[in-house]
Amino acid sequence: MAKSGQKQESGLLKDIIAHAKEYGFVYPSSEIYDGLQAVYDYGPYGVELKNNLKRLWWESMTRLNGNIVGLDAAIFMHPTTWKASGHVDSFNDPMVDNKDSKKRYRADVLIEEKAAGYENEGNQEKANSLLATMGSLLEKEDFTALREFLIEENITCPVSGTTNWTEIRQFNLMFSTQVGSVSEDSSTIYLRPETAQGIFVNFLNVQKTARMKVPFGIAQIGKAFRNEIVARQFIFRMREFEQMEMQFFVRPGTELEWYKHWADTRMSWHKALGIPEEKLRRHDHEKLAHYANAALDIEYQFPFGFKEVEGIHSRTDFDLKAHQEFSKKKQQYFDPEINQNYIPYVVETSIGADRLFLMTLCNALKTEEVGEKSRSYLALHPALAPVKAAILPLTKKDGLPDKAKTIFDELKYDFNIVYDEAGSIGKRYTRQDLIGTPFCIAVDHQTLEDDTVTIRHRDTTEQERVPIADLQGRLAAACSFRNVFEKI
Amino acid sequence: MAKSGQKQESGLLKDIIAHAKEYGFVYPSSEIYDGLQAVYDYGPYGVELKNNLKRLWWESMTRLNGNIVGLDAAIFMHPTTWKASGHVDSFNDPMVDNKDSKKRYRADVLIEEKAAGYENEGNQEKANSLLATMGSLLEKEDFTALREFLIEENITCPVSGTTNWTEIRQFNLMFSTQVGSVSEDSSTIYLRPETAQGIFVNFLNVQKTARMKVPFGIAQIGKAFRNEIVARQFIFRMREFEQMEMQFFVRPGTELEWYKHWADTRMSWHKALGIPEEKLRRHDHEKLAHYANAALDIEYQFPFGFKEVEGIHSRTDFDLKAHQEFSKKKQQYFDPEINQNYIPYVVETSIGADRLFLMTLCNALKTEEVGEKSRSYLALHPALAPVKAAILPLTKKDGLPDKAKTIFDELKYDFNIVYDEAGSIGKRYTRQDLIGTPFCIAVDHQTLEDDTVTIRHRDTTEQERVPIADLQGRLAAACSFRNVFEKI
Repeated sequence: MAKSGQKQESGLLKDIIAHAKEYGFVYPSSEIYDGLQAVYDYGPYGVELKNNLKRLWWESMTRLNGNIVGLDAAIFMHPTTWKASGHVDSFNDPMVDNKDSKKRYRADVLIEEKAAGYENEGNQEKANSLLATMGSLLEKEDFTALREFLIEENITCPVSGTTNWTEIRQFNLMFSTQVGSVSEDSSTIYLRPETAQGIFVNFLNVQKTARMKVPFGIAQIGKAFRNEIVARQFIFRMREFEQMEMQFFVRPGTELEWYKHWADTRMSWHKALGIPEEKLRRHDHEKLAHYANAALDIEYQFPFGFKEVEGIHSRTDFDLKAHQEFSKKKQQYFDPEINQNYIPYVVETSIGADRLFLMTLCNALKTEEVGEKSRSYLALHPALAPVKAAILPLTKKDGLPDKAKTIFDELKYDFNIVYDEAGSIGKRYTRQDLIGTPFCIAVDHQTLEDDTVTIRHRDTTEQERVPIADLQGRLAAACSFRNVFEKI
Repeated sequence: MAKSGQKQESGLLKDIIAHAKEYGFVYPSSEIYDGLQAVYDYGPYGVELKNNLKRLWWESMTRLNGNIVGLDAAIFMHPTTWKASGHVDSFNDPMVDNKDSKKRYRADVLIEEKAAGYENEGNQEKANSLLATMGSLLEKEDFTALREFLIEENITCPVSGTTNWTEIRQFNLMFSTQVGSVSEDSSTIYLRPETAQGIFVNFLNVQKTARMKVPFGIAQIGKAFRNEIVARQFIFRMREFEQMEMQFFVRPGTELEWYKHWADTRMSWHKALGIPEEKLRRHDHEKLAHYANAALDIEYQFPFGFKEVEGIHSRTDFDLKAHQEFSKKKQQYFDPEINQNYIPYVVETSIGADRLFLMTLCNALKTEEVGEKSRSYLALHPALAPVKAAILPLTKKDGLPDKAKTIFDELKYDFNIVYDEAGSIGKRYTRQDLIGTPFCIAVDHQTLEDDTVTIRHRDTTEQERVPIADLQGRLAAACSFRNVFEKI
């Protein structure tokens, strides 16, 4: 399975992974112990870029909308939460073992890969028929028939090449652990598989303490965990990942208007960040999850194809109703405008912070030919760039480092900047290009005379002479989130 | 045990907990399911305050120091990490069961409580002798003698009142879970009990990719998890908590100078945030952990006494050496200044984000008598306040709301502000006082004539008339982190 995953990875994804590792954006987790599969660590430039993306999302939600507030619910939740949400009973993958190779697979993935094979051979009809049969068997949860189907269709184990399959069993994707030490008190709890439920169980707490009136939203950023069988494609699908979710609570009957509003707003958000329109695609779900009455994905053209970055879901009152039933506590809102109590409907926007990070990196990495050489740089929006400016004394002599440090010490309070005096100025420009620093500020002998510096621009490599006194204002104007906000 | 924990909580802690719940700062986790012990959720104002504290710490570390960079390692790490760090073998509490009540306790806590009893009776000598014996038995890990000591000293179960104790066993505080679905591949991993190890295993990755030279530091903010037996005192000791740690790598032999530097710097940081000197205390450790050659706590006078907020530890080369041994990969740095390879020594600053939050809240909550009434408010530093300003039209008529919204729409890009038109202006001031909003901006009829507004100041309740055009600058000046940074 891992093999077939890698086949989909184009050369470009490999370039991204290599660049991310080499220039301090993303490392394999616990690399000195040969890594932990499907888990990654963010390095010095990675964490700054990710923090900027998270903050940009957070402020877009909570500041630009007077009726959206934040929340930070814990990863640990009462286990009944996951009974109510359906995750204990239904958050499963159908697993099957091959008796000869002793390898375990997701049955649905085996069938999908067989279908993809037919598709590549041009046999679209056969591919469709495989997928249709699979869909209907999964829906009926008829795993005996699903196993027979594997054998009939000669779907073999990639290792042993046989169809000697065990029974198919359901495997729950939630990680569990034991809390408490007193044996009679200890209980199984789960690492949350999604952040959304933290918002639902706090719906009334937030509504009351922040005095919110429907329609209103709750935004949250936090880790979630899924014991993925087939984790692949770098940070696209990890076992530990970060979600940015906003649940918007509306009067029943108005949910589809709000669904449209959020679908449009979120699509503009991605464009405002600099993602070109042709790389984005809206994919409307035809088959809906049991809790939804409308759903779509915003997809980005990754090196491995168009894939979901964000989902917009009209979740109805499914979750609040379930929590009302399981907790026996009313999850209702009194709407003074229509003088009625109701359980609000919910429209959700759910984006993976790691996927957003990967999209941003894929979109930013550029290589261009300059004469005989090629130049690589990260064309990140200045508001997102990990380092806003590098302060570079032309030489280590003549008091230039001191002058450069004075500039550094003035700007460091407001911007993440670096000071670098090692190596030729050209090499130092290259280093900054590779981590996406939009402005290189060179301090030379003229600086000592007239308090001006050279700004070298990352994307064009053009240089201009500006007074030191203008730097603060120039950086603030270029790096302000407002540049993005005003385009949404 | 829970009982004795609550006894230590003064009336004031109860006030803090009630205020935090009622005004949207902190809720018990999964409250509709009657909560999950020792886990809490941050509400709309809580998450903003916590984010401000985290960002202030992050920027103090990574911006004010040109030689400190950030990292965000995953919660999941390779399990060998925790063998190397000593957590698999030594991160234990001594647990004992009472055979009559069937209740389980931490043996050391039972003894500490007995000692506290003697202390309250004025018998300091007996108290000291109990603690000394316990310390020596724990160090030798002589649990048979420790059990006999419980019985000899008539240390009884609070429920049954007997000394009918089982053997004492070690209980590991790490949460574990299973990763992977293929039976032969699945393995036990742990939720990290501290964030520091994520920095140590990435030491060379960061040093190389960010081109750092010793001395340099790596800063990280992230969740950690401990299966605490006796979790107590609100968010002070939780099972899921957030750490802000900075590991500073230095040349061996220079570590005690750096230890002094960081102890002083961190103490000033707390004062710069507005914590009064007399509420802070430095507690030097006499007994050192096996990995340390110097250690101290910065303690704050919580309602339940002086307790650790932050620890400064000179950790020697213990961790890097252990990872070198377990990974068989050299964890060395080549120091060009002295032309030598060595394993750096480490000075650590480690602060609990939740404890910092609790300290900030305890320090901010004020009640003062105003005539016959009392007024409560949160005197938070404007840089930390969740909401910077409230825009309040005096009435709902005469175009005042429209004018107020124009002001809101201009300021919202740069500050977290709210618009409120519901209720009397006095009531609206009160609401903002309770969440610590430093500025209330009232829009009245005069505003329509001369584009001025009233700013009402939270701490003094004084009002002043200022032009709308000045608001942006006034807020920026008051709320800038630079106000804090310049005092460190």
